[in-house]
Amino acid sequence: MIVSALLTSVGINLGLCVLLFALYSVLRKQPGNIEVYVPRLVVEGKAQRTREFNLEDLLPNPGWLRKAWQTSEDELLASCGLDAVVFIRIFIFSFKVFSVAAGLGMFILLPINYFGDQLRETDFTDLQNKSLDLFNISNVKDGSNWLWAHFSAAYVITGVVCYLLYSEYKYISLKRLEQFYASKPLPQQYTVVVTGIPSHSGCSLSDTIESFFMEYHPSTYLSHVVVHRTNKLRGLIRDAENIYKRLTRLRSRPHNPASSERNCFFGLFGKSKDLVQDYSKRLEDLEENVRQQQSGYSKTVEEVSAAFVCFKSRYGASTALRIQLSENPIEWVTEQAPEPHDVYWPLFSSSFIRRWISKLLVIVASITLTILFLLPVAFVQGLTNLNQLKTLLPFLNNILEISVVSQVITGYLPSLILQIFFSIVPPIMKIFSTMQGNISLSGIEKSACSKVLWFTIWNGFFAIVLTGSVTSQVQIFLEPKDIPWKLAVYVPTQASFYIAYVVTSWTSLSKELTRVIALLGDWIGGCSGCFDNELQAPSMTYHSEIPRILLFLLIGLIYFLLSPLILPFILIFFCIGYIIYRNQLLNVYLPKYETGGQFWPIVHNSTIFSLVLMQAMAFGIFSLKKLPLASSLLLPLPVVTLLFHGYCRKRFEPVFQTFSAETLIKKDRSEQNDPGMNEFFDKLKTAYNDPSLAPKDRSQYADDQNTPLLFSLES
Amino acid sequence: MIVSALLTSVGINLGLCVLLFALYSVLRKQPGNIEVYVPRLVVEGKAQRTREFNLEDLLPNPGWLRKAWQTSEDELLASCGLDAVVFIRIFIFSFKVFSVAAGLGMFILLPINYFGDQLRETDFTDLQNKSLDLFNISNVKDGSNWLWAHFSAAYVITGVVCYLLYSEYKYISLKRLEQFYASKPLPQQYTVVVTGIPSHSGCSLSDTIESFFMEYHPSTYLSHVVVHRTNKLRGLIRDAENIYKRLTRLRSRPHNPASSERNCFFGLFGKSKDLVQDYSKRLEDLEENVRQQQSGYSKTVEEVSAAFVCFKSRYGASTALRIQLSENPIEWVTEQAPEPHDVYWPLFSSSFIRRWISKLLVIVASITLTILFLLPVAFVQGLTNLNQLKTLLPFLNNILEISVVSQVITGYLPSLILQIFFSIVPPIMKIFSTMQGNISLSGIEKSACSKVLWFTIWNGFFAIVLTGSVTSQVQIFLEPKDIPWKLAVYVPTQASFYIAYVVTSWTSLSKELTRVIALLGDWIGGCSGCFDNELQAPSMTYHSEIPRILLFLLIGLIYFLLSPLILPFILIFFCIGYIIYRNQLLNVYLPKYETGGQFWPIVHNSTIFSLVLMQAMAFGIFSLKKLPLASSLLLPLPVVTLLFHGYCRKRFEPVFQTFSAETLIKKDRSEQNDPGMNEFFDKLKTAYNDPSLAPKDRSQYADDQNTPLLFSLES
Repeated sequence: MIVSALLTSVGINLGLCVLLFALYSVLRKQPGNIEVYVPRLVVEGKAQRTREFNLEDLLPNPGWLRKAWQTSEDELLASCGLDAVVFIRIFIFSFKVFSVAAGLGMFILLPINYFGDQLRETDFTDLQNKSLDLFNISNVKDGSNWLWAHFSAAYVITGVVCYLLYSEYKYISLKRLEQFYASKPLPQQYTVVVTGIPSHSGCSLSDTIESFFMEYHPSTYLSHVVVHRTNKLRGLIRDAENIYKRLTRLRSRPHNPASSERNCFFGLFGKSKDLVQDYSKRLEDLEENVRQQQSGYSKTVEEVSAAFVCFKSRYGASTALRIQLSENPIEWVTEQAPEPHDVYWPLFSSSFIRRWISKLLVIVASITLTILFLLPVAFVQGLTNLNQLKTLLPFLNNILEISVVSQVITGYLPSLILQIFFSIVPPIMKIFSTMQGNISLSGIEKSACSKVLWFTIWNGFFAIVLTGSVTSQVQIFLEPKDIPWKLAVYVPTQASFYIAYVVTSWTSLSKELTRVIALLGDWIGGCSGCFDNELQAPSMTYHSEIPRILLFLLIGLIYFLLSPLILPFILIFFCIGYIIYRNQLLNVYLPKYETGGQFWPIVHNSTIFSLVLMQAMAFGIFSLKKLPLASSLLLPLPVVTLLFHGYCRKRFEPVFQTFSAETLIKKDRSEQNDPGMNEFFDKLKTAYNDPSLAPKDRSQYADDQNTPLLFSLES
Repeated sequence: MIVSALLTSVGINLGLCVLLFALYSVLRKQPGNIEVYVPRLVVEGKAQRTREFNLEDLLPNPGWLRKAWQTSEDELLASCGLDAVVFIRIFIFSFKVFSVAAGLGMFILLPINYFGDQLRETDFTDLQNKSLDLFNISNVKDGSNWLWAHFSAAYVITGVVCYLLYSEYKYISLKRLEQFYASKPLPQQYTVVVTGIPSHSGCSLSDTIESFFMEYHPSTYLSHVVVHRTNKLRGLIRDAENIYKRLTRLRSRPHNPASSERNCFFGLFGKSKDLVQDYSKRLEDLEENVRQQQSGYSKTVEEVSAAFVCFKSRYGASTALRIQLSENPIEWVTEQAPEPHDVYWPLFSSSFIRRWISKLLVIVASITLTILFLLPVAFVQGLTNLNQLKTLLPFLNNILEISVVSQVITGYLPSLILQIFFSIVPPIMKIFSTMQGNISLSGIEKSACSKVLWFTIWNGFFAIVLTGSVTSQVQIFLEPKDIPWKLAVYVPTQASFYIAYVVTSWTSLSKELTRVIALLGDWIGGCSGCFDNELQAPSMTYHSEIPRILLFLLIGLIYFLLSPLILPFILIFFCIGYIIYRNQLLNVYLPKYETGGQFWPIVHNSTIFSLVLMQAMAFGIFSLKKLPLASSLLLPLPVVTLLFHGYCRKRFEPVFQTFSAETLIKKDRSEQNDPGMNEFFDKLKTAYNDPSLAPKDRSQYADDQNTPLLFSLES
């Protein structure tokens, strides 16, 4: 890519960004769009649809930017939870890293690269048609002493990243503890999920559990709830809900001229009156069915050998969690209970062995998907190489020779296609994680986050950089000693692709703001009246967003030494992301669960990985550049980095897994004399009842907060 | 190697074995040798030195064999502990495996190999001069359908090994639980080692510990003992002990004509009278010094931020052990306490970070030692190749041409040298494990056992099989995909070396019986009267014996398919080992600690490793033998094996790490009303006092059971 193509791309994307920002500021002020742009505030009752129209509403203004910027971290924590704070801190952390990196890169490394004469084109004229390669390390002469600047930069950036990682980990672990100390008593703090309960003949599951815990935890055991296999019942309730919603809609539109005859343009052949009667009849049948099943569920609904066991103190629950309960380690297996509305009920039907096997199968499936995803990536790669494309599709020759078209194709299209392909993966990985046997939505998303992360790093970096076929990818692992050299050879060749990719991603970030699909859905739904129009605030999909951001962190660190030109663009990416996601978290996304910052260890580990990869590549680069001394002197760097990683694992990771005896007992004692605790314990006893077994009247269908969550993955 | 060389070796070794067995049966009956051959019984007071001499004592008899054979496992458990039972069960397990393997190998695989005509020498005449290669799989024609017999054998043996592994794991874990239930209250069950105790200014360490546990474990906390840095004091006590012993010896020999003038032939210039006075003076000075230090130790002896914390119940101790105590995970770190006499005191001086770093350094050192050990191995390998040796050392040509000499050199010497070199390694690895920061002798030996195991597998198998330089060894890891083929090519070439090695090992096993070094030491000591003659029963060095046996398990499994001729020899090895070690455990070794069978997981994991290696090699063999279908059909085998391994890890490994709440509470309750418990708790409070801080009078020096153990590693 030459400089002019880059400038074109930057121009297009900056323009698009400004356009999208302006569009958003206009669209969000339209009364009709309130449910698209501030659904969270609507659900929370902080915003209402007004029917007044102002001319002012058609002028873009930056008020939302100011608001997103000014909100303090404590406000964010209070309204969106620690997970949102952790998410935003990824941007802050990255911004800090790349401020230093960009400073070093632009003022020290870039001039050195440019004035190096390996590529022998150091005249200042005609900057536009210069290849971007002139700004790469490739332009520095082999064996030049200027390379020691790059060497020092590798040490400096490692130091900076490690220092920042340490302080972030410390900060977030403190926040996590603070949040725990400040929290009201929560059911999940007092509850443990027990699976693999052995069945004794002549004794019900409930009695077995009761007698076991009365025997071994008599002073802390409070109650338990046996899990039932309610998939069928849930299906019935869902049907009833759907019919109830349609019925309500039909009845609520008496003045709609269409409704007297026809419901909507899809229901062409249905008479409204008949429909109401028909729906009412079906609803009654279903409700009767549900009631029958619920009333006799102890006989008809199968029990699963799993239960939620509640304790009288947090410390009691933690003791049961930490100490292996039974002599046989695969019986009475305990797990931390998720929040009641975070429980993923369908998965409780699996046994220990089945969950274990499916976990292994899912790992294999994820790896296969990750590797076979190469095909679309290879196609995209072909696009960046215009000549290859011309040979492949000769009939496009004429079009490709128009300079704008070719610049768009090489500069913009590949990244766009890649991003579309990437957007399919998170849902697939989430399905995998679901099959894996996680008992909570948060667990599913955490597990999916790791899967998507490795997928993204593999296909967004390795597959692109190392090119070629699936076999040549697998080769990498079979010949690990060659990794530094392979990276050193291939990574620089893809520098311009990644610069273009980063620039394009500005637009895709801004698209997040305008929520095009939700907007279209709202319009179509509003026009036709046929879609489910009930307002639900979406929740943040951390498992797709976090890996996406971490990919940029990886790219930035890798290209820091090679091609510092990329750094300002990455810095802009993180700035845009920071402001947009703050806005979205405050206005759009309603947190579905609270893990207490458990996503941060994933971020930490991935950053360490990026750092070590950068160091390995630097090792290869200095060898290729005939500066073997620098190569050897780099060797302590990964060792120290990994030692630092090991220390952080020991120092901080346990904080994110459980709370210590000290913390739990302090918290328990602070509430010992609280009169509200009895009421809480009464509620606790029923907190983990399966929502599908609770008797429902029709009014609950509409505002039931739990059920939609529980079904959201089944569909 | 040809058949006649093998027969020579078998002859020599069988002869030596019988000779050693006979010699042992004679020597052990000599009254003077009682302290060499039944030291354990002497220490326990079950055997006494008699001065009567019978002519019968000079005739070998197999009485000891019968006794060793007839002792039941329960008797062994009662007198030697579970670790000894586990050790003996390695032989039983291996015997079972190789009975099946030898049956399959000798009656099915061997005939197939022999009648294969790849090497085209299938006449029956002159069996003596046949190369052993005729019995190898190499003799089967490429692509022959007979290879399917080998293929089925791989499946059968995997099934058999997995079944036996499962039943052994189950059996031993049950034994472990039984032993726990049957045990009297033991200090280590009630105690936890706490390290990384934060220091508060203005508050002594002891007060900090007391207030912390009174705060967070008020109902179960009993007492604690702060650890002191007593290295200097221990040095003084050791000196005092040595002098006291010499003094006692001097005084106890008034009628010895030498003692009036000269103590012994080393003390040529010392008069006995002066010596007694001199020693008495020095002893008094030392004792005074020790007493001074002990009385004022709270001021003079530095405290270490570590303590033994005792609890009122096993469950209480386990709770403190399992639940992270402090908000900061690297403070108040807990560990299971070892038995009081198993504590390795010198190591308590290290902080968390220092222990962690030294652990990493030790890992690096162990790997380096393992890899650099190649040099002696390469030398030994040269010996098996006679022609190479002739070129290397031309002056030996004449000698090497004598057939007996050459047969001894190729058949016997290499293995002997290898075994001598191998015997140096366990002590080195034990020193490494000591530096690593284990707080108990048993922990040190367990950790050394793993190190020696990997060392043995690497240098006793990989280095020999894969030959060549250090680089070519490291290559293996850098190109892991080639492992099956490399193994398939190189392993068969070393078959005759390993047959010779197994045969030689019969003799080295039998040497264990005669305890040559101890016998010589006893004789020299007895003659000169100059050595410390105080009787101490040695303890079993599991960390050197277990890896040695597991190497034979590996060799047997690897060569099962390739060269089944080795199997009967291995079977004999395990039979000899079984009987010898039973005898030695009953008569010679006094258990120094009881880990409750914690060595078994090492055995299990190593066997799984051997199995997977065998499968990988079989995969390579079938590819080389042009039977690709068999290769592909072998692929599920390692997968299933690893799944089985994963299941066993989940099912059994936790049992070997801690006891469950169920177990602990049951055991606690069974003793709740035992009147002896108060007395036990009183003893418990002082059980973990540093022995060097206890006031000592001289009579304690001689029969102090603890101190020699504590010093045994420092020297």
